[in-house]
Amino acid sequence: MVAAHIFIDRKGLAMKPTGNQILAEFFDCSFNILNDSEALEKILAEGIDACHLGLVGMTSHCYDPIGVTSIAVIRESHVAIHTYPEARHASVDVFTCSRGSHKSMDLLHYLEEKLMPATTRIVEVSRGNPLEVARTNWITDDNSSAGFDVRYRIDAELYSGSSRYQDIKVIENQDFGRMLFLDNDLQIAERDAHLYNEAMVNPLREKQNALSSVAILGGGDGGVLYEVLKLNPGSVSVIDIDEEVIEVAKTYLRSICYSAFEDKRTNVVIADVFEYLDGSHSFEAMIYDLTMHPESFIVMDREAYLDQLFAKMKADLKSQGCLSLQCASEYDYRTIELVENLLRRHFSSVKLTKKFIPSYGSMWMFASCIKI
Amino acid sequence: MVAAHIFIDRKGLAMKPTGNQILAEFFDCSFNILNDSEALEKILAEGIDACHLGLVGMTSHCYDPIGVTSIAVIRESHVAIHTYPEARHASVDVFTCSRGSHKSMDLLHYLEEKLMPATTRIVEVSRGNPLEVARTNWITDDNSSAGFDVRYRIDAELYSGSSRYQDIKVIENQDFGRMLFLDNDLQIAERDAHLYNEAMVNPLREKQNALSSVAILGGGDGGVLYEVLKLNPGSVSVIDIDEEVIEVAKTYLRSICYSAFEDKRTNVVIADVFEYLDGSHSFEAMIYDLTMHPESFIVMDREAYLDQLFAKMKADLKSQGCLSLQCASEYDYRTIELVENLLRRHFSSVKLTKKFIPSYGSMWMFASCIKI
Repeated sequence: MVAAHIFIDRKGLAMKPTGNQILAEFFDCSFNILNDSEALEKILAEGIDACHLGLVGMTSHCYDPIGVTSIAVIRESHVAIHTYPEARHASVDVFTCSRGSHKSMDLLHYLEEKLMPATTRIVEVSRGNPLEVARTNWITDDNSSAGFDVRYRIDAELYSGSSRYQDIKVIENQDFGRMLFLDNDLQIAERDAHLYNEAMVNPLREKQNALSSVAILGGGDGGVLYEVLKLNPGSVSVIDIDEEVIEVAKTYLRSICYSAFEDKRTNVVIADVFEYLDGSHSFEAMIYDLTMHPESFIVMDREAYLDQLFAKMKADLKSQGCLSLQCASEYDYRTIELVENLLRRHFSSVKLTKKFIPSYGSMWMFASCIKI
Repeated sequence: MVAAHIFIDRKGLAMKPTGNQILAEFFDCSFNILNDSEALEKILAEGIDACHLGLVGMTSHCYDPIGVTSIAVIRESHVAIHTYPEARHASVDVFTCSRGSHKSMDLLHYLEEKLMPATTRIVEVSRGNPLEVARTNWITDDNSSAGFDVRYRIDAELYSGSSRYQDIKVIENQDFGRMLFLDNDLQIAERDAHLYNEAMVNPLREKQNALSSVAILGGGDGGVLYEVLKLNPGSVSVIDIDEEVIEVAKTYLRSICYSAFEDKRTNVVIADVFEYLDGSHSFEAMIYDLTMHPESFIVMDREAYLDQLFAKMKADLKSQGCLSLQCASEYDYRTIELVENLLRRHFSSVKLTKKFIPSYGSMWMFASCIKI
């Protein structure tokens, strides 16, 4: 058991709950191999090695009167083969964590070469969050707590890559324009980014022209930054852990960040906010543009994590300083209740407002409060 | 090695190349068990036994720094659990030959009881021949023209049947309550039916207490009828082609129609509006609660069909009579443009308004106009 205070993401070691599973049916295979568990194990081990996957252990079982199951546990998850020699058939599963997804297909092709099916049928499934049967050209927003999902058509994939922290995708969609997804979680869309960004910045408006320094926690897409700069602040610090998101935004999302990152009042800090907020700062206002669902990258309890983080935010705010936060969909009742309780514990004048963000497909909750 | 000519299935012994695989994602599990391979193996072994499956062998692997894979080979195929303790997440696979398919689900429920996920998502796959994905507990709204789809989780299916005209389904969803689908097209949901119905009736409000007769075209769920009756009309005719929709509403959607169908001012007409509107009527007001996408049941051009229908509606309205219509999602630009043009051709004071209907996941366009 790993101690609760270890934050896996800092080490870049996290096994996020995302994976890729290929379910394949091999029809009319070479009969000879299908009932030979030794041959199957040899093929499996050699294939795993050839595809640069890591064999951890193997178990086989021969059925009476016929048929073999061979399962390999690999560092990247598992591979299972069930054979039905009487039907010259094999069912194959290759399950890998997302970073190894092309290796799954490599291994499948290796097995095809050895078992020689006349026909192969494949279903590809995204495992973890979301659980989704691959439909090319669609992306489903990560929304596990709600009773509904929104799925977006990908008219063009403009960028797809993996940083040390997450998968980053920019797609083009007919209704919402360019859309940024981090680990399949929709962040912002070109057509309605202004609605989200304005909601985030609204609590700061009464201090327009009187904001010496503002901190944006997260916000690597630059949309909130662009909106804050309109208030004529002295300086704005964007504290984001992932430099690559900022680079992607500057390249593909100029209609969201414009030239905000090049503004001389902008100060980009590549850091984990949990470490950055150390009581040494004194911001006039702070905007929380991070997730309220850190479960995938923390090992401690969510409430304890957010409680500590909110305390750190308070410590780095000036007295009478203002905090603005995005929260969750209006249907994520548990999160909204949790955030409201935590804010009341640390801050005053806690206000919740909701606003329809079309690309999210639902009303979104925002919160604001004051440090006394 | 079994000789190639043995056809096991003739003897009733066959392991046919058919199986059933449940892919499940467990969200927000009990943290303590997820990184404990011994506990996982014990749960797996006991569950396999409790569900009358046959354990053959088990392999586990603990990942560094965190995470466990436990795989059991069973007589009926295999069970695999991959845990992501840092995210309180487990991915579970249960693969069994088809005869044991209810046992797969039993085992899944057993594992749920032990790992205690807050939410479970499931994809069921028919393995072998055919390889097919069954999604038993989701329904996707038919929304082909937009760049996004909304998919709803079915917490319970309350009614599913086919009338002469369409498939009718009533489901229960955590966020929207009871929901009515006709041919997979979402009609109305319990939680926000009032928002839709009020938008439909709003254009008639200034004639409150002065409406001698109102016609609702479509509206078999009774929600608009319920809302119109509040305006104290002389009589309301509901003209719907499908009697079964009305029966389903009276049985399952009482929180939408209440006792509106039993009101003595209500007159239900089972008819095709295209035939019913024959110039012999003289309504004070009319509400169009039908689709603007009749393409699936007409053979003529959509524009020509709607043009004729709008002319018929006008002919059966009194002078100064009011027409209120639902149109389409705000993203269905072509339909909105078409409807607006057709209305301007036949009517005066054409107004379009939009309103967010949460269960539709988008802004919805409504129109109103006057016969001069």
